[in-house]
Amino acid sequence: MEPPFERRIAACKRRLAADGADLAVCFPSPNLTYLTGFEESPSERHLLLFVPQDGDPAIVAPAMYEAQLSELPIPDLERRFWTDADDPLEAVAAVLEDYSLERDQGGSSTADREPPTVLVDDRMWATFTQDLRELCPDAAFGLAGAVFEPLRIRKDDVELETLRRAGAIADRVALEIRERGTDLIGTTEAELASEIDRLLAAEGGDEPAFETIVAAGPNGARPHHHSGSREIRAGDPVVLDFGAFLAADLEGSAATAVGRYPGDQTRTIVVGDEPPAAYERVHETVREAQAAAVEAVEPGVTAGAIDRAARGVIEDAGYGDAFVHRTGHGVGLEVHEPPYVAAGNDRELEPGMVFSVEPGIYLEGRFGVRIEDLVVVTEDGAERLNDTPRGWETGQ
Amino acid sequence: MEPPFERRIAACKRRLAADGADLAVCFPSPNLTYLTGFEESPSERHLLLFVPQDGDPAIVAPAMYEAQLSELPIPDLERRFWTDADDPLEAVAAVLEDYSLERDQGGSSTADREPPTVLVDDRMWATFTQDLRELCPDAAFGLAGAVFEPLRIRKDDVELETLRRAGAIADRVALEIRERGTDLIGTTEAELASEIDRLLAAEGGDEPAFETIVAAGPNGARPHHHSGSREIRAGDPVVLDFGAFLAADLEGSAATAVGRYPGDQTRTIVVGDEPPAAYERVHETVREAQAAAVEAVEPGVTAGAIDRAARGVIEDAGYGDAFVHRTGHGVGLEVHEPPYVAAGNDRELEPGMVFSVEPGIYLEGRFGVRIEDLVVVTEDGAERLNDTPRGWETGQ
Repeated sequence: MEPPFERRIAACKRRLAADGADLAVCFPSPNLTYLTGFEESPSERHLLLFVPQDGDPAIVAPAMYEAQLSELPIPDLERRFWTDADDPLEAVAAVLEDYSLERDQGGSSTADREPPTVLVDDRMWATFTQDLRELCPDAAFGLAGAVFEPLRIRKDDVELETLRRAGAIADRVALEIRERGTDLIGTTEAELASEIDRLLAAEGGDEPAFETIVAAGPNGARPHHHSGSREIRAGDPVVLDFGAFLAADLEGSAATAVGRYPGDQTRTIVVGDEPPAAYERVHETVREAQAAAVEAVEPGVTAGAIDRAARGVIEDAGYGDAFVHRTGHGVGLEVHEPPYVAAGNDRELEPGMVFSVEPGIYLEGRFGVRIEDLVVVTEDGAERLNDTPRGWETGQ
Repeated sequence: MEPPFERRIAACKRRLAADGADLAVCFPSPNLTYLTGFEESPSERHLLLFVPQDGDPAIVAPAMYEAQLSELPIPDLERRFWTDADDPLEAVAAVLEDYSLERDQGGSSTADREPPTVLVDDRMWATFTQDLRELCPDAAFGLAGAVFEPLRIRKDDVELETLRRAGAIADRVALEIRERGTDLIGTTEAELASEIDRLLAAEGGDEPAFETIVAAGPNGARPHHHSGSREIRAGDPVVLDFGAFLAADLEGSAATAVGRYPGDQTRTIVVGDEPPAAYERVHETVREAQAAAVEAVEPGVTAGAIDRAARGVIEDAGYGDAFVHRTGHGVGLEVHEPPYVAAGNDRELEPGMVFSVEPGIYLEGRFGVRIEDLVVVTEDGAERLNDTPRGWETGQ
């Protein structure tokens, strides 16, 4: 596959033009990875990507990244490296000067111009936005999220293919855990979580995409329970919520990395004995709610309507107050990103959007049930990225 | 030990007064942990700590943190929680109103006042600084780093004790890896990194303080190499850079947590065969540079002079261009924080400062060498927090 970066940068520039902005500045963040494939954590070191409405993109980075960044398959990207002996702000100022966005030096030619608009990464640290404000004192500053969100929310082919593979990894592990049946009894939540992490890696995943949740018995009533020392008992409902990141690449080399995409699925199972009173009805309600929400997915429907489809089933069964979170969240370079499948979200679904559908019912002191799959919006409906059995019976 | 938070908040307020600033605003960051012990990752949810020059501190947080934040041993801290049904900006505006820093409503009484000065956490996301700028349009904005840095740069007793223990954990793992000798041959970098992480946990560490670096052969020439599928071969120089966080607490309960402090050390070893040409001389040069830099540490010497001590040895050996990064970085609640041991840094060392000394030589396409220890500035010199053998020979 061709590297997607030039196409994505061109789309970013068109968005800047449509929004009347002159420049977007990315900080180490998923936006930077999206546009370049380069992935790094935020740090105090100046590492900034500049995408102007007119002109070529530029990156300013510490010299230690020179080898890595020189390999990025983006021919038009200007790369400026600074060493610890340099002032990184000189490199930043030089880029801004190339774009004619630097401080007005008193020349009359700029006096007639509109003040430029600079959009910064929503997560850029204040120390870097302060630098940019000082270097561009006449500019109006805004957030770049509005430019990046519409680009990133529709996944392209390499992203969809990676999400499918990450989903399949989670599914293989879900099946393996389910097949263990009564062998799970006596295992602590933390031990099983660690075993799931090991299986995710063995199935080809990278690190877990989030802290693996194993929540047994009453612990299942806490949606974000940290797996602990409780042992799984016969008849315990056990909520199993996990997935691994998978790195996408085009040809298997570091130079063509395009970032990491997560798996994320949940099943609630019972082994070895009859479940608690009311459990069967609750599980069936969640299962129907999840099916109704997935069934409702198609282009043009709002994200809020998907939430309503799930919530309606649960409210009709009398458990509305026990469904304490939104129905789902988008996934992509981030595990939680738009679109949020939440009450009142008017965002209309479009082909290529990917999100979780994960209704749940949480009965404090008793148990919880959650069922989750990732789905892709297709031209006329939804494609599920997870498809293991959704029932609670393990057959053992 | 008494919780240090009221003492630290009082010191913060004195600094605000000295700097003529009205308010510091912290975001989930090491500054927030330093002042409260509370540790959380940045997210899109409004979680802000306000420390005014006059008046009591306040925290605005999502309701899900209510139980946790109510336990903080800081009696004067005002706590305001918001739920998903609230607009978090209303809680923020209410706090600013208490401090008389809210938007001028047109009343004449504020017309004569100096515009207030608000200092924001250096790492606050742009999306939150934009909010504060809109709520306080008349305020002058600056960075809170200048207030926090002098407080955090000198470690107190609980911090030093934790750093010593984290250093000892890294040392025990370094020794264990070294003792494996030729058993390391055939292991991939990623496998060995995973094994190091396991050993760090087994020795009592929390999670790795940064991505463990195992860089074999030519990969060692990249200072921040991501451990990958390359197998360690006989004669490969292998750069091993790792350490685990260790959580400090006062009495072992969550309510008295005071944050996590890292280990960070590097050794470069060779197993099973003769190293490449020039390797022995390069390694000896780095070792001498590291020793010279540690030897130079004492109060009153500048951080830049420590860098010079290491760099001078490497330049004299003809490898100046191959030492592509600074000599070191401070450690504390952050793995990278002041003081930075870099060329031109005039900051004078003071007792209680803790930083790495880690010169390296990187020969692209061939190999790299780095040797790193953490040191504490004492009244008359340096205390090393790492002290395993620095030679490359593993004896096997």
